Amino acid sequence: MAGNTFGTLFKLSSFGESHGVALGGVIDGCPSGLSIDLDFIQHELDRRKPGQSHIVTQRKEGDKVEFLSGIFEGKTTGTSIGFVIYNENQKSKDYDHNKDVYRPSHADYTYDTKYGFRDHRGGGRSSARETVARTVAGAIAKLLLRQYGIGIQAYVSQVGNLKLETPYQQLNLNNTETNIVRCPDEVMAGQMISLIEEVRKEGDTIGGCVNCVVQGLPAGIGEPVFDKLHADLGKAMLSINAVKGFEYGSGFDSTKYKGSELNDIFTAGDAGKIAVQTNNSGGIQGGISNGEDIYFRVAFKPVATIMQNQATVNSRGEETNIQGRGRHDPCVLPRAVPIVESMAALVIADHILRNKTSKL
Amino acid sequence: MAGNTFGTLFKLSSFGESHGVALGGVIDGCPSGLSIDLDFIQHELDRRKPGQSHIVTQRKEGDKVEFLSGIFEGKTTGTSIGFVIYNENQKSKDYDHNKDVYRPSHADYTYDTKYGFRDHRGGGRSSARETVARTVAGAIAKLLLRQYGIGIQAYVSQVGNLKLETPYQQLNLNNTETNIVRCPDEVMAGQMISLIEEVRKEGDTIGGCVNCVVQGLPAGIGEPVFDKLHADLGKAMLSINAVKGFEYGSGFDSTKYKGSELNDIFTAGDAGKIAVQTNNSGGIQGGISNGEDIYFRVAFKPVATIMQNQATVNSRGEETNIQGRGRHDPCVLPRAVPIVESMAALVIADHILRNKTSKL
Amino acid sequence: MAGNTFGTLFKLSSFGESHGVALGGVIDGCPSGLSIDLDFIQHELDRRKPGQSHIVTQRKEGDKVEFLSGIFEGKTTGTSIGFVIYNENQKSKDYDHNKDVYRPSHADYTYDTKYGFRDHRGGGRSSARETVARTVAGAIAKLLLRQYGIGIQAYVSQVGNLKLETPYQQLNLNNTETNIVRCPDEVMAGQMISLIEEVRKEGDTIGGCVNCVVQGLPAGIGEPVFDKLHADLGKAMLSINAVKGFEYGSGFDSTKYKGSELNDIFTAGDAGKIAVQTNNSGGIQGGISNGEDIYFRVAFKPVATIMQNQATVNSRGEETNIQGRGRHDPCVLPRAVPIVESMAALVIADHILRNKTSKL
Amino acid sequence: MAGNTFGTLFKLSSFGESHGVALGGVIDGCPSGLSIDLDFIQHELDRRKPGQSHIVTQRKEGDKVEFLSGIFEGKTTGTSIGFVIYNENQKSKDYDHNKDVYRPSHADYTYDTKYGFRDHRGGGRSSARETVARTVAGAIAKLLLRQYGIGIQAYVSQVGNLKLETPYQQLNLNNTETNIVRCPDEVMAGQMISLIEEVRKEGDTIGGCVNCVVQGLPAGIGEPVFDKLHADLGKAMLSINAVKGFEYGSGFDSTKYKGSELNDIFTAGDAGKIAVQTNNSGGIQGGISNGEDIYFRVAFKPVATIMQNQATVNSRGEETNIQGRGRHDPCVLPRAVPIVESMAALVIADHILRNKTSKL
Repeated sequence: MAGNTFGTLFKLSSFGESHGVALGGVIDGCPSGLSIDLDFIQHELDRRKPGQSHIVTQRKEGDKVEFLSGIFEGKTTGTSIGFVIYNENQKSKDYDHNKDVYRPSHADYTYDTKYGFRDHRGGGRSSARETVARTVAGAIAKLLLRQYGIGIQAYVSQVGNLKLETPYQQLNLNNTETNIVRCPDEVMAGQMISLIEEVRKEGDTIGGCVNCVVQGLPAGIGEPVFDKLHADLGKAMLSINAVKGFEYGSGFDSTKYKGSELNDIFTAGDAGKIAVQTNNSGGIQGGISNGEDIYFRVAFKPVATIMQNQATVNSRGEETNIQGRGRHDPCVLPRAVPIVESMAALVIADHILRNKTSKL
Repeated sequence: MAGNTFGTLFKLSSFGESHGVALGGVIDGCPSGLSIDLDFIQHELDRRKPGQSHIVTQRKEGDKVEFLSGIFEGKTTGTSIGFVIYNENQKSKDYDHNKDVYRPSHADYTYDTKYGFRDHRGGGRSSARETVARTVAGAIAKLLLRQYGIGIQAYVSQVGNLKLETPYQQLNLNNTETNIVRCPDEVMAGQMISLIEEVRKEGDTIGGCVNCVVQGLPAGIGEPVFDKLHADLGKAMLSINAVKGFEYGSGFDSTKYKGSELNDIFTAGDAGKIAVQTNNSGGIQGGISNGEDIYFRVAFKPVATIMQNQATVNSRGEETNIQGRGRHDPCVLPRAVPIVESMAALVIADHILRNKTSKL
Repeated sequence: MAGNTFGTLFKLSSFGESHGVALGGVIDGCPSGLSIDLDFIQHELDRRKPGQSHIVTQRKEGDKVEFLSGIFEGKTTGTSIGFVIYNENQKSKDYDHNKDVYRPSHADYTYDTKYGFRDHRGGGRSSARETVARTVAGAIAKLLLRQYGIGIQAYVSQVGNLKLETPYQQLNLNNTETNIVRCPDEVMAGQMISLIEEVRKEGDTIGGCVNCVVQGLPAGIGEPVFDKLHADLGKAMLSINAVKGFEYGSGFDSTKYKGSELNDIFTAGDAGKIAVQTNNSGGIQGGISNGEDIYFRVAFKPVATIMQNQATVNSRGEETNIQGRGRHDPCVLPRAVPIVESMAALVIADHILRNKTSKL
Repeated sequence: MAGNTFGTLFKLSSFGESHGVALGGVIDGCPSGLSIDLDFIQHELDRRKPGQSHIVTQRKEGDKVEFLSGIFEGKTTGTSIGFVIYNENQKSKDYDHNKDVYRPSHADYTYDTKYGFRDHRGGGRSSARETVARTVAGAIAKLLLRQYGIGIQAYVSQVGNLKLETPYQQLNLNNTETNIVRCPDEVMAGQMISLIEEVRKEGDTIGGCVNCVVQGLPAGIGEPVFDKLHADLGKAMLSINAVKGFEYGSGFDSTKYKGSELNDIFTAGDAGKIAVQTNNSGGIQGGISNGEDIYFRVAFKPVATIMQNQATVNSRGEETNIQGRGRHDPCVLPRAVPIVESMAALVIADHILRNKTSKL
């Protein structure tokens, strides 16, 4: 109940702080017999890791995952999978000057209040470094989903005021990984990179959006009434650091339309399949997948740590100043792409397993 | 795991279909000694019930709740609270002509696929009638929150293109219940009512937004890392029928700003308290409340059932037509207000209890 | 977490007190498409109900179950099943004289301490009347298990010092229901009935054991390492009122033997099947079923309520006396048989569903 | 749901196989501010570890625990505690000859059936080596319980036919650790050691019982109706390898008595406290602690691995023979003592936290 476990049947219990010994987790509920492609998992970690380009934090971490159990001769055994990623590049001293100071829009004050004291080194458990465990578990979930022909692709759709309005159907999502900002539109990608460079020079940070598409999911996945597929996806996304909003299908835009305009009309598809004229439902009706693409959008605020002087208070409530040090992301969006995919993969994998007992 | 339970320590397991015998639930984990104000609970149900004004469905239901256990001499006993609301006004025949037809943007097709067959009478379990159980549990959660001085107020902030841009701080939320659309701005309320009347005449429906504010919540509530307070609020809202998006604090708007613009600067408040210059965080930092107001926004699509002719298919995949009959909401927003509050109350009550074990 | 929910995938959340309005529950996770045999369910309730013979309590309850949801045209829909059994024959006044007195070996004192006050009417939630909800859910679980060819049969194997030593394999378990004490050995049954009659005349009560056999369960059911099949069975049995011990297979007797004596030797069975020479493992190895019969034994203490004068204290800690009134069981064993079966059915049904995701 | 998590609020998710890289776990829900005594934790591991005396397995493992998170400056932070124990002394080759053979009364056949294949090296996840993670978590739970003045002491009460009949109240439990078999009666301890030596010489194994006493637990701990304190203790014990039975208080013996003989009479104790004349209830009434000592007994079968030739079958169902190799326990009882204590500590710690929300 203390919040470090995600999922019900495909379940991750994670641990670790940004400046502790290691991060890791236990994955429980992964079916036996799944081939574990270690290169793929490391590749996913590399997509998330710091220092991968000049527009993300220059912190250097190997982020090598070590599996400790649950895999035998290259396949999952059905028992729990323990894994660990040792921290290498902790520079706790970067944080000594802040030991007693609450960083604005960070979790310092709230953790201190909740627990009576806090690990001041880089945010401790509240640091986004925690998402490294999500990425490992998400990579395994992706391997599971591959068995069902399900693919998940996220991309950066917005940085600051630069917003890619093109619908995903008209984008070539294979271009996402061809540029460092992970936007599949090359022109927009170039603009986004320039904006991030500019923001970084100012010692500032900038927000944006990640869009995500799930393809190949069969109809019937998701549980009424509280564990609707989009509700679990929403929670998953909102649990990622810096996320402020979530919408799926026609999302917030739906509010402006009439039912007669927004309803997705069913039609007779090929080979007796049922098709839809539109997919404003985002592939989910009544919380359950209908076989169409699932797509959603996630809003990230700008990183709270800036390289500028800010007023704040210390733990005694006295006013003081703070200036960010160390190596931070001017924009988390590029690194958020694999994290969004990982969380989506965990949700979908969990619901695929949950659905195995829906019918006699 | 089948999705009919919400919460961890303050937990609702609900049941019931729109055209079944009854709806109800079991509330487990409500502390003993809480005075149960039955009038208040019925009042909450009345805020949600059909037929309360001419801009909502004209279906008539008494929606009288009967408590079956867990309350003794007016107080909770600490054991599970069973409750039931019998259906009175089911007109299952309204649905006979649709028995075999999939209503567009409804859950007919997805339930049928998931379970192998479906209860065609009015959506069965997928009907928003299910939220009657949430309202009962939410009312009890509100009674619990009152003990902590916590209040929750939601209101309609948008219907179609009519959007109330005034921040909640500048509204008198006590005006919310003074009009049938539940918008605290009277001028806007009048426009919204007119729009809904117009849409209803067309046999159409319209979407909108509900805003919600939680006041009086102390700092320290919420659990890292997956069960962040806003993640659980988001899931709660997204689990409500017709919801397509959720944002909290500065929400989607955050994406456009720089860290230097959006960060909430801490200042020395009165009596040693810590204050903030702005509350873009929406009262939550690192997933944990910081003592400021929590506020969020929920997007509802237009109701899928319209009184117009629509193309669709039947369960054999053959194209056909459908026309809504019966009594439906042209706009769910007015009735959604107590439901949003109820779900918020369930989340906050649950997290208040969860926090009781955070410190030694 | 407040303890009124049992199971993980096939899940019962129950409510109700002995002298409240009603008892009931929500069954969540029952697969869709299961035919519900209402006569069978009522028959199970009748096996448990008071007043069925002269050796059990003479309290009269119809114990008619009303299903409120989750069943449509005779089959489960896959959504949650709500059910209720209204109390008819509460004589709360039987308890008024005890209002302030702690009955020896009852839960009066512990509930009072835990919750700050208690429902003094017949034990409230701590009454064994609560098992009526378990019986309904267990009956549905049995219907599910039938689909897999799994049968569960319990019987009374001991009352006081009268102990049936014959192994279950040498008994005709179909005789269990031919006598009112539910012991399949007729001679022993007669002696047990006489003993209970005698004890009842003394205003006293007597303990005993129920044995239970599960047949037809395939190999592979049960989860390592904490949710071993026998651990979940053990918890299920120990959660029944008045149970003081649980053993499975060779049980406590195992302690006296050497490995060379107790090990179950595998042999080549018919048709490539693997057989065992003995079944001291009780059909469970490493917490997982091996395809052999599962059998276990459950110890019940004598009912705490006796029709004799007993010393005790009141809620102010003052010494006083108490004498049981009302209608109570001199021996719960006969009525415990369907309850033991019900709890076993819930555990097995849950684990059958859980096993559906063990392999890719 | 896959069974590798124990507890609800104080929760252990464990991983690891006997011959894998490492074992470990994540403890979630330990309150912040608890001082972590690393020496005590290692001391507990040493009580459990192989090679500690000549009557247990001679396998040599350092069993050094490394904490990876959740502890800062010697105290728990309230976030999840990751820990790992690397395997050092795996001799997987000891198992190569058995690769394809099902060891009698082991989990080889059941794991193979459940998961489609198995890790044949020493039982993999089904090995009792898994209990090393329980011991670490249990040690932390003990540290938490110390804060409440609660102590847990287990001891060996039976080996084969050697049964210590003296009630625990008449034993000096501080003598338990003064001999290698962990029996507080020195004479009996000597006999037990001789018996185990004898059995070991025969290449055989022997079962026995562990008794356990919990002292200092206040009244009010435990949850109705399914999560009764003794039900959770029972499940905890039954989840330990080789356990075949559990009883608490007067246990199986209760079956022979009448209510008038077995009921625990309340009396006026010192200082307004309520006392009992007897404690047949084992400190638990209605599933909730009553402030008296909690005591229970756990039955262990003899270890299945014997150094004798046994008939069995291989995975193709063909009859063959097997002879145990390697280093095994002739009797697990001495090493089971800290494991029983650990599991008891986990249950009690969990229920102490759960009780924090029982009253308003």
